[in-house]
Amino acid sequence: MSTTEFDLQNTKFLKNVEYPNDLKKLNLMDLRVLSDEIREYLIDVISKIGGHLGASLGVVELTLALHYVYNTPDDKILWDVGHQGYIHKILTGRRDSLKTIRQKGGISGFLKRDESEYDVFGAGHATTSISAALGIAAARDFQKRNYKVVAVIGDGSMTGGMAYEAMNNIGLLKKDIVVILNDNKMSIAPNVWAIQNYFNELLTNDTYNRFRSKVWELTGSFDKNTSDRIRKVAAKIEGGLKGVITPGMLFESLGFRYFGPVNGHNVVNLVKILEDINKISGPILLHVVTEKGKGPSYADAHPQKIHALTPFDKTTGVELKKSSVPTYTKIFGEALTDLAKKDDKIIGVTAAMPDGTGLNILQKELPQKYFDVGIAEQHGVTFCAGLATEGFTPVAAIYSTFLQRAFDQIIHDVAIQKLPVVFVLDRGGLVGADGPTHHGTFDLTYLRLIPNMVVMAPKDEQELRDMLYTATLYKRGPIALRYPRGNALGVEIKDYTKLEIGKGEVVKSGKDVAILAIGNMVHNSMQASELLAKEGIDAEVVNMRFVKPLDTALLNDVFSKFKKVITVEDNTVIGGIGSAVAEYAENLGYKNDLLIHGIPDKFIEHGKPEELHQELHLDAEGIAFTVKNFLMNSVEVKI
Amino acid sequence: MSTTEFDLQNTKFLKNVEYPNDLKKLNLMDLRVLSDEIREYLIDVISKIGGHLGASLGVVELTLALHYVYNTPDDKILWDVGHQGYIHKILTGRRDSLKTIRQKGGISGFLKRDESEYDVFGAGHATTSISAALGIAAARDFQKRNYKVVAVIGDGSMTGGMAYEAMNNIGLLKKDIVVILNDNKMSIAPNVWAIQNYFNELLTNDTYNRFRSKVWELTGSFDKNTSDRIRKVAAKIEGGLKGVITPGMLFESLGFRYFGPVNGHNVVNLVKILEDINKISGPILLHVVTEKGKGPSYADAHPQKIHALTPFDKTTGVELKKSSVPTYTKIFGEALTDLAKKDDKIIGVTAAMPDGTGLNILQKELPQKYFDVGIAEQHGVTFCAGLATEGFTPVAAIYSTFLQRAFDQIIHDVAIQKLPVVFVLDRGGLVGADGPTHHGTFDLTYLRLIPNMVVMAPKDEQELRDMLYTATLYKRGPIALRYPRGNALGVEIKDYTKLEIGKGEVVKSGKDVAILAIGNMVHNSMQASELLAKEGIDAEVVNMRFVKPLDTALLNDVFSKFKKVITVEDNTVIGGIGSAVAEYAENLGYKNDLLIHGIPDKFIEHGKPEELHQELHLDAEGIAFTVKNFLMNSVEVKI
Repeated sequence: MSTTEFDLQNTKFLKNVEYPNDLKKLNLMDLRVLSDEIREYLIDVISKIGGHLGASLGVVELTLALHYVYNTPDDKILWDVGHQGYIHKILTGRRDSLKTIRQKGGISGFLKRDESEYDVFGAGHATTSISAALGIAAARDFQKRNYKVVAVIGDGSMTGGMAYEAMNNIGLLKKDIVVILNDNKMSIAPNVWAIQNYFNELLTNDTYNRFRSKVWELTGSFDKNTSDRIRKVAAKIEGGLKGVITPGMLFESLGFRYFGPVNGHNVVNLVKILEDINKISGPILLHVVTEKGKGPSYADAHPQKIHALTPFDKTTGVELKKSSVPTYTKIFGEALTDLAKKDDKIIGVTAAMPDGTGLNILQKELPQKYFDVGIAEQHGVTFCAGLATEGFTPVAAIYSTFLQRAFDQIIHDVAIQKLPVVFVLDRGGLVGADGPTHHGTFDLTYLRLIPNMVVMAPKDEQELRDMLYTATLYKRGPIALRYPRGNALGVEIKDYTKLEIGKGEVVKSGKDVAILAIGNMVHNSMQASELLAKEGIDAEVVNMRFVKPLDTALLNDVFSKFKKVITVEDNTVIGGIGSAVAEYAENLGYKNDLLIHGIPDKFIEHGKPEELHQELHLDAEGIAFTVKNFLMNSVEVKI
Repeated sequence: MSTTEFDLQNTKFLKNVEYPNDLKKLNLMDLRVLSDEIREYLIDVISKIGGHLGASLGVVELTLALHYVYNTPDDKILWDVGHQGYIHKILTGRRDSLKTIRQKGGISGFLKRDESEYDVFGAGHATTSISAALGIAAARDFQKRNYKVVAVIGDGSMTGGMAYEAMNNIGLLKKDIVVILNDNKMSIAPNVWAIQNYFNELLTNDTYNRFRSKVWELTGSFDKNTSDRIRKVAAKIEGGLKGVITPGMLFESLGFRYFGPVNGHNVVNLVKILEDINKISGPILLHVVTEKGKGPSYADAHPQKIHALTPFDKTTGVELKKSSVPTYTKIFGEALTDLAKKDDKIIGVTAAMPDGTGLNILQKELPQKYFDVGIAEQHGVTFCAGLATEGFTPVAAIYSTFLQRAFDQIIHDVAIQKLPVVFVLDRGGLVGADGPTHHGTFDLTYLRLIPNMVVMAPKDEQELRDMLYTATLYKRGPIALRYPRGNALGVEIKDYTKLEIGKGEVVKSGKDVAILAIGNMVHNSMQASELLAKEGIDAEVVNMRFVKPLDTALLNDVFSKFKKVITVEDNTVIGGIGSAVAEYAENLGYKNDLLIHGIPDKFIEHGKPEELHQELHLDAEGIAFTVKNFLMNSVEVKI
């Protein structure tokens, strides 16, 4: 914990700012002081509880300027992703509840319509804001209203194809929309990106301006008649030059008027520019350059580190707690790197999440076998399919929730063609503080429904290693494994074992009831079996390992041996492993009592995974409780 | 049937061309004659059997030039979508089997890896080719091989965000890849599109060339010293000008070298250009302008009509048969237009398929309430979400298979926020000749797993109308209906009835077995019940109507009344309505015999829907057969 306590009552302006109207009472110059106060306040709060700090620190001035100039919530500001939305929350009635952010029962870490009328459109995944903005602008025009619509989108999100689809459509419809490109040259990880390189080049060498002066200087030395003629040509040429040398080129080709780049930390200037832009109609792109993590010195040193922070010491930036047990992410990253060293066909692919997926380890050790495709899961999956046609074994490491973006590509480009792409889904199940936009609770279903697909979930970190190893050797088609966010169990790491496809295992024999568990629910079910043992109930615990293909021999044994069978998964109860077992049992005519236990069919709010597991009866106690109820015949209706 | 019979043996060159090597024996000038022969052959064959004619007629010369210049299959040519792939098939061993195209057991209407080593990457959905090409190029470079990789993509596909994602990534990696933009100014429907307008503008006024000559003409009149100085500036400026005035602007901003536009029907010139480009490394975009449906006079008159043709008279272009029963597509288009006239909040949205979805009717009658977002399902769905936030009722009319592209947007932008977007999925179930890339056999599952979603399927065209009406009144969150391709049943059209959400109906009472059917399977099941009646089996037929929420009261009745219950759907047996019923039965402890009947867990090849239904026991006879087997207790294992 830091020694310097921030005190809101000691601030000059922030103490009186709760809503945008409070902001508008301030003098333009006061916004500079307020920026500093907000930054200090934000760092103070987030250092204690953790959160996405960097993105919001970068948009302090931009957010102030937007709420100063626009008449929110009548004017609509859409924040892409929402990582950058903390300042917006502070300024729109949630200053004091910031300390509850991302905690169970507290405010969301993202924008959320339920939470505030100022949150025009919820987000969590990237690149949705421009499309939503067009919908809102079209609605406005139908109703002949005249509010402004502004989408604020980071340069990372701009690598997503949806941004292009939306801008293209806006360019066609010529709607009055302002898109603000928040260019922090970072996205979630520093992205070495064609379009990014392009921006960077522009910023470092101001070719356009130099060119312009040169032309005029040159022509000025000719006689009047000649120079007039040349200037006439040059004037026409100027537009051309501008197109080549500014990033406007891309946006202008899509029908936008381009302004910028402008310094995103000069709040006075930002206000003036926004006021000017406010008078112009049609599609506008304003390019604002910001510094992610602007503020504290440690943020400048490690800007990437503060994308999503656990609590830290605000004077040093050092995280306060580190578990000694490695994360599944790290286990995967190391295993992949290890396997890739031995098998030159293995290639790692991430969609702009090298750190989040553990692929940073591969990137560092075998950079030539590492690809970051940008926030472009669709392209990433089909890129993998292309690699696979030529005999490679691409490993697409994409969060469970983000892989939803590539659902069609998995079916159409990979599964139909039976290409051996390995899908590794981190953040399977309940992810915690990021909440409903990020929970990976649909993957067992959306992957299981795809023909030719193998779907696995490891019970611990060694099984993750074995599954990855098995997957890279599989070669007969697509194969997926999913595991949860966070620390592994701390089991001993051994050499790789090739698993038999579609074979589960009994991890604990019993005689009263069978618990068929998958992934992290195996551990919880084992713990539940211990609690049940204390009450004289002898539960068998089965690690299903494979959601597809099902281990039907094992199921036949289980159905023969036990009257009562319960499935446990941290996936929706619709279409997951419980349904797979139910489909099998029904079609085979088994008359056992079967209970499907998992995530109910609703969106789960944010909270720590352990809190959510407890609430949903998916922790050891909850599973034991559910099993006991089941044995007492009070069948729980889940749908 | 036309009177003039085409005779392959009377051709000068085509009779001897079966593979690209045969092509290479020809003189460059001979390709012109061969183009004509291929066009005549293609029209002759397709006029008899139907197929995607227009796209292929447009790329006769381009395909010839590509196979003439490149060394296929060592060099890799990827055809986006594959509608344009018929000429490629003719030239790569499938000239004579063209007459089997899209017919059961015949060759596919799309590219297919299983079918030929020349089909580098299968396709059916748009915008995948550039991503796959990058994967193949990366594989090539890993293996230090030097084959060429060429992706041919239409201007319509270019509206899809994946193209941008892929080009951006290629620009970064600077791989040797040629992207050929086949610009037929059409896509599937004439798309009025920002980027398209841009191309058109360029083509109609050759500003760039005029500019260039003007600069040189001007400077030529100065004295040597002056003109040298000016030319130096002008040379630098030239790139700039080019950027503004050619479509290169977009592609160059993504790191491509742009060439074109060139006439796509001058085969000699195309060969020369491809040979030139072949010598250049790095990412290249060649812009080729073609005319969709080039050839017969009736194609010029109605180019859109010949996107996907039923058999037609090759001298008049008139389709040979027309059913008197309207299609579901037309019923929907008319009902939506009708409802939109009465409810000013209803907006229709298509992703580049106005004719295919029936939205052309809305477009014609209420153009201001019609949006075509391009081949951009992701953007389209989130655009609808934006409209819905402002109180509108957007109706997203997207084929079942294409809506897979927007799976994440349905979850993240619509369902989490409970926005009242109406999803209307045409081509649900087995679509027929388009085959595995286009079957809509996953939708009941991928929609059912989404919380807050209502999922319906009508038993006939009047129920479609009622469901659409119900959906537009629902307002409490997302709601979807899906129906099959093709003709409706011909039932009487009545006024709209608002359906109770989650209520099915018994359409025929019985006492021996209950058939729980959904959508078009209700009709087949009714017919099956008549066949069963002849054998003394009295089947009850239930129209489930709602896949979600389930009619649990109805299910309770059914489970109480019948020992044996069978579900019937033309959706995968994984996670569909059968699974929904199984989940319910298991969790409630029902011990009935339940059989899940539907599409098996594999990709289904192409063929007429009725042929496929027969093969899969989903026609009347097949359902009756399955029910009889089930009653005789020989339970069919489906998984």
